[in-house]
Amino acid sequence: MTQLSDENRLDDAGTAGTAGTKGPASADGALAHALDRAHVFHSWSAQAALDPIAIAGGLGSLVWDFDGTSYLDFASQLVNVNIGHRHPRVVAAIQAQADVLPTVAPANANLTRGQAASAIVGHAPAGMSKVFFTNGGADANENAIRLARLHTGRDKILSAYRSYHGNTGAAVVATGDWRRIPNEFARGHVHFFGPYLYRSEFWAASPEQETERALRHLEHVLQAEGPQSVAAILLETVVGTAGVLVPPPGYLPGVRALADRYGVLLILDEVMAGFGRTGAWFAFDHFDVTPDLITFAKGVNSGYVPVGGVIIADPIAATFDHRVFPGGLTYSGHPLAMASIVATLDAMATEGIVANAARIGADLLAPGLADLAARHRSIGEVRGLGVFWALELVTDRATREPVPAAFMGALKAELMRRHLLPFLAENRIHVVPPCVVTDDEVARALAIYDEALTVAEATL
Amino acid sequence: MTQLSDENRLDDAGTAGTAGTKGPASADGALAHALDRAHVFHSWSAQAALDPIAIAGGLGSLVWDFDGTSYLDFASQLVNVNIGHRHPRVVAAIQAQADVLPTVAPANANLTRGQAASAIVGHAPAGMSKVFFTNGGADANENAIRLARLHTGRDKILSAYRSYHGNTGAAVVATGDWRRIPNEFARGHVHFFGPYLYRSEFWAASPEQETERALRHLEHVLQAEGPQSVAAILLETVVGTAGVLVPPPGYLPGVRALADRYGVLLILDEVMAGFGRTGAWFAFDHFDVTPDLITFAKGVNSGYVPVGGVIIADPIAATFDHRVFPGGLTYSGHPLAMASIVATLDAMATEGIVANAARIGADLLAPGLADLAARHRSIGEVRGLGVFWALELVTDRATREPVPAAFMGALKAELMRRHLLPFLAENRIHVVPPCVVTDDEVARALAIYDEALTVAEATL
Repeated sequence: MTQLSDENRLDDAGTAGTAGTKGPASADGALAHALDRAHVFHSWSAQAALDPIAIAGGLGSLVWDFDGTSYLDFASQLVNVNIGHRHPRVVAAIQAQADVLPTVAPANANLTRGQAASAIVGHAPAGMSKVFFTNGGADANENAIRLARLHTGRDKILSAYRSYHGNTGAAVVATGDWRRIPNEFARGHVHFFGPYLYRSEFWAASPEQETERALRHLEHVLQAEGPQSVAAILLETVVGTAGVLVPPPGYLPGVRALADRYGVLLILDEVMAGFGRTGAWFAFDHFDVTPDLITFAKGVNSGYVPVGGVIIADPIAATFDHRVFPGGLTYSGHPLAMASIVATLDAMATEGIVANAARIGADLLAPGLADLAARHRSIGEVRGLGVFWALELVTDRATREPVPAAFMGALKAELMRRHLLPFLAENRIHVVPPCVVTDDEVARALAIYDEALTVAEATL
Repeated sequence: MTQLSDENRLDDAGTAGTAGTKGPASADGALAHALDRAHVFHSWSAQAALDPIAIAGGLGSLVWDFDGTSYLDFASQLVNVNIGHRHPRVVAAIQAQADVLPTVAPANANLTRGQAASAIVGHAPAGMSKVFFTNGGADANENAIRLARLHTGRDKILSAYRSYHGNTGAAVVATGDWRRIPNEFARGHVHFFGPYLYRSEFWAASPEQETERALRHLEHVLQAEGPQSVAAILLETVVGTAGVLVPPPGYLPGVRALADRYGVLLILDEVMAGFGRTGAWFAFDHFDVTPDLITFAKGVNSGYVPVGGVIIADPIAATFDHRVFPGGLTYSGHPLAMASIVATLDAMATEGIVANAARIGADLLAPGLADLAARHRSIGEVRGLGVFWALELVTDRATREPVPAAFMGALKAELMRRHLLPFLAENRIHVVPPCVVTDDEVARALAIYDEALTVAEATL
């Protein structure tokens, strides 16, 4: 399981503590740490080696431990706190809803739930009127897959090798990354390669060529699998954990055209990319494409209450007007989650938070990260948009050989020492602050990345 | 899909509105209804025919609509509001946590999460020290299955035909009821028949015979499947939605002995039965059996914030000390959920809420429902414990023929007209009030069931 261990260590790097920052000094910090080690079983981890920092509180782009040490949260926790920590309007909405009706069964109507659904579809394309609420992104994709299979009467789901769609039975098998392999207990899933020019599967030399060849590859997979057996193509609009892979021009419209040609649905997974992360309400707003099903979670309420969901095109919803949809869950449309969504979307609009993410991306991160790349030979590629960026780190720009784990370990220690919570994955830094990040915080983070890269590069 | 439609109509009966109670008069009620119909896609339903009531608020065992009409909630919503609606200490704990830290990534330590895990394992058997938190019961079972497969190195999960374990990819395939069939996209699941003396699969004439024969059947299935290929037996301690099937004496210890003999793990699903529902902290406290993995959700915090989890025996947890556990989710150990668990478990203990459920069951529901059965020929069997009961309704006590859908439709209308929110499933009333239900509320409910059964019986 060495491979898994290595992956995990890097995936967790954004939030796990290091030897240099280990001991919370206060009594509460020590208690938090002791109870965690005694009783909490952690995600995606070998348990014995963990030494997590205990987060005591947060505000905006900052979190702090029980010693009062603040960290710039350039991971947005798990790329989900788009509105920043402890936004007062979202906190107040949760508190007010708790006073009225903390929970209700999904079969009953609930005013806040209707308002949340209405607010969400207000940002979606015309002709997508209904929302099915889930507990998170995984079951959003589960239910999108279920809707697609039942609507089309077909079985197979095509998704990309470099992808993450969640960790339940069907969702994890749709997933393209290593997290699928120990969980392969399902059928009907086929994987293909999406565009990734920096490490092209298609020997392409330009974005145009990568698009053309990736579409040809997808069509070949469709044909070889039998289009009449394929329910849907499932894609992250911008591939997230697997590398912030922004699709090249023409790719997504081309996928849409293929889906239409073969009568296949298009599901866009906006769990990580949606609700401000790319500087738009939905990432597909950048790419001239309309999906049949949209899955969301994370940014829709910045994870203040667990929630996810599926936005459904009207013809698919209509399939279930007189036929039972065979899916459901106790907490579907949970009132606290719904109140947090209503407040989050309202605050993001009225406070210009999505626009801020776009401005930060265009005016500060794009030039700032390009400047870093100009001064650090380990940066092989910079890619992204909004507050959704990756630095791909290599030992050699010509061979594009990924930096080794030791480099990433040193990098993580240097970033944490400088009080930046990073998101590190494989050989990459994902630069993913909250959408509310300020110009000053970006400047501080860029300086910290600069210093930490300099130290880490000395290990090469 | 007629079968699904019929099942659904009955499953939803506890909470969906009827023609007799349809129109919320106030503006907010009308808006709630209109937004719901326009934008909310509902669980387990054909969408066009839905006409849900809009719940405006609740307290204890009562909920009310926007007209101010109160209903006795004898469904506990979806058999989850064990502590009653809007318990002040749980509401306050959620509000206080929202002020400090509404969300945090699972990889970071969090004081409230450690306290919640500690409180939960305090009610579990010795030797189960760690908790993995999920978003609900479905992914609790998903991860219990994953833990069992990886710990044993075996693939198959044996579960019962009459069961419900959730609705994600692996969980729904473990499920034994009809909700599995449209979702069969996985492998490695085998179903067997559990004990159900009233409709015995084994031609048994006594509880002792049912136990003996059901165990022999399970052993035959284990042998026929190859025990060396079986990771775990997964059972609801008391089967919930499929009928409140209380296991006969000796059955669960017999399953434990079979599991031990063949080196198979025992997972007990306490999602519906746990945390007070049966008048005990865990339903297995009644049955002299210790599981290897316990799954929970619902009653652990009465659904005030979406949450679930797995309590893990130490040897299984130790398997992942130096090996990565390949499972995880963004909202694992969510602070608001954790705060609600700490407050819920504390309030349930200090306010005697579990003891109240036991007392209500023994002193009021057992004799009260027996009295109903004595006066209603349609009641074929009464079974249950605590605040977890079923009345099995039949056209003829000799043939045990289930009552038809028309009977259940009439029954639902009569119950709703008398302002009782029922939980109806197939040919059964599940009598499942909150654990905080009062003597007076039970008396009122028994009188309502009595009147409604009298009217419905006129349709036979």
